Amino acid sequence: MNSEKLSIIKIGGNVIDDSKILSSFLQDFSNLEGYKILVHGGGKVATRLANKLGIETIMMDGRRVTDKDMLDVTVMTYAGLCNKNIVAKLQSLGTLSMGLTGADGNSILSKKRENSNIDYGFVGDVISINSSWIKSLLEIGTTPVFCAITHDKKGQLLNTNADTIAQSLATGLAHLFNVSLTYCFEKRGVLLNIDDENSVIESLNFNYFQELKTKNIIHSGMLPKLENCFQALQLGVKEIRIANPEIIKNPNLPHTYISI
Amino acid sequence: MNSEKLSIIKIGGNVIDDSKILSSFLQDFSNLEGYKILVHGGGKVATRLANKLGIETIMMDGRRVTDKDMLDVTVMTYAGLCNKNIVAKLQSLGTLSMGLTGADGNSILSKKRENSNIDYGFVGDVISINSSWIKSLLEIGTTPVFCAITHDKKGQLLNTNADTIAQSLATGLAHLFNVSLTYCFEKRGVLLNIDDENSVIESLNFNYFQELKTKNIIHSGMLPKLENCFQALQLGVKEIRIANPEIIKNPNLPHTYISI
Repeated sequence: MNSEKLSIIKIGGNVIDDSKILSSFLQDFSNLEGYKILVHGGGKVATRLANKLGIETIMMDGRRVTDKDMLDVTVMTYAGLCNKNIVAKLQSLGTLSMGLTGADGNSILSKKRENSNIDYGFVGDVISINSSWIKSLLEIGTTPVFCAITHDKKGQLLNTNADTIAQSLATGLAHLFNVSLTYCFEKRGVLLNIDDENSVIESLNFNYFQELKTKNIIHSGMLPKLENCFQALQLGVKEIRIANPEIIKNPNLPHTYISI
Repeated sequence: MNSEKLSIIKIGGNVIDDSKILSSFLQDFSNLEGYKILVHGGGKVATRLANKLGIETIMMDGRRVTDKDMLDVTVMTYAGLCNKNIVAKLQSLGTLSMGLTGADGNSILSKKRENSNIDYGFVGDVISINSSWIKSLLEIGTTPVFCAITHDKKGQLLNTNADTIAQSLATGLAHLFNVSLTYCFEKRGVLLNIDDENSVIESLNFNYFQELKTKNIIHSGMLPKLENCFQALQLGVKEIRIANPEIIKNPNLPHTYISI
């Protein structure tokens, strides 16, 4: 087993939508040593383009319903505008990065979601990761930057949740690297009290998570995120953090460290 | 010197804009053996999106004037929609392809055009190719698919002519591979008589080119294309063809073979 460290960092809308935060984050990411992968969501840019084109945005359970027109919008904004501008900025900071969808290098294979009460349209659930190819890419000195688009290997691009992509990459590469996965978002971590920014749960294991879930202290969107985290740890990911993007520069800042 | 063959194929609007021709071309490209690189223009998709968004398309000397909004449109359509759909289709045909702009892997470095009477906006002229990285990419079994976007390594993406990208890749890789460059377009090759599809000039050397240029038989857009070809041959490219996309499947079809 290769024990080289691989840092997978996922950033969401709060970073993508604010050019100042994004710029500062990319500087910190660029300074990060060792193998690393960036995964980004799309923020509001897809919704803005859809609005301009008169395409209605429909969200169900926090997920975008993706018809053909909306798929084109997400491909244009996530894989085009967001991804390539991030790559260009990383190059200016000296990081030899490369932007990818799951179609590139057949890196993330997914399947159109069908067994669901809701028709999400062109939305894909991840099946597998082309771990050997991604490893080769890292070994030729490249830092992959993934957007939230995958494919079904039948020629169809699919919209896929960025958190899921980060988790799939982490678990799919866990047999090759010592993987650390960091989810960055607007808070400092998982909060005991949503109204108190300083109530960060610094260490969260599965039993404590179950307790907080029962007490309804952890609920809504944080539930599937954390369930994914525990699953990833069981599948061999070494370290998972939920934190503000500033953690990349200063690992000692308060954040939530997830353990089994 | 590495004598492995590398085929660089450039396709333009006539292929991109027609899903049937594109599909057939990608099948032929997929069957092509050995190292290969695909370079594609954007066709009409950028103009269509610009129209929908109320952004005026201004062409000067056959080149798109690219202000900030138009740059975003070209990045979304060339690097997003066109590039990623081509990659997804190639994956379905069993070709491990990867879509790139010049920013990815710092593969094509360019400089914003300034010494021009016309302000083309965010248009880049190629400075250099990251040949060692592209070679590594080929060697890990990847087929690069380049769109017509480059960068300046200062964080700025730039719109760049796809013919120029193909020529720059060919010359930049000529010291590492035995490079064959094929420009595909709607005709079968360079025609002696523009109204006669069967008047293909099958062999065109520099002296003959000069003669046809003097007689005004070769003019307009074909002039810079051919001048680029002769320059590429002088810079070490082994073989250049101007042909219909069908040449990929059947190399014996009539086409124009360029030689010094």
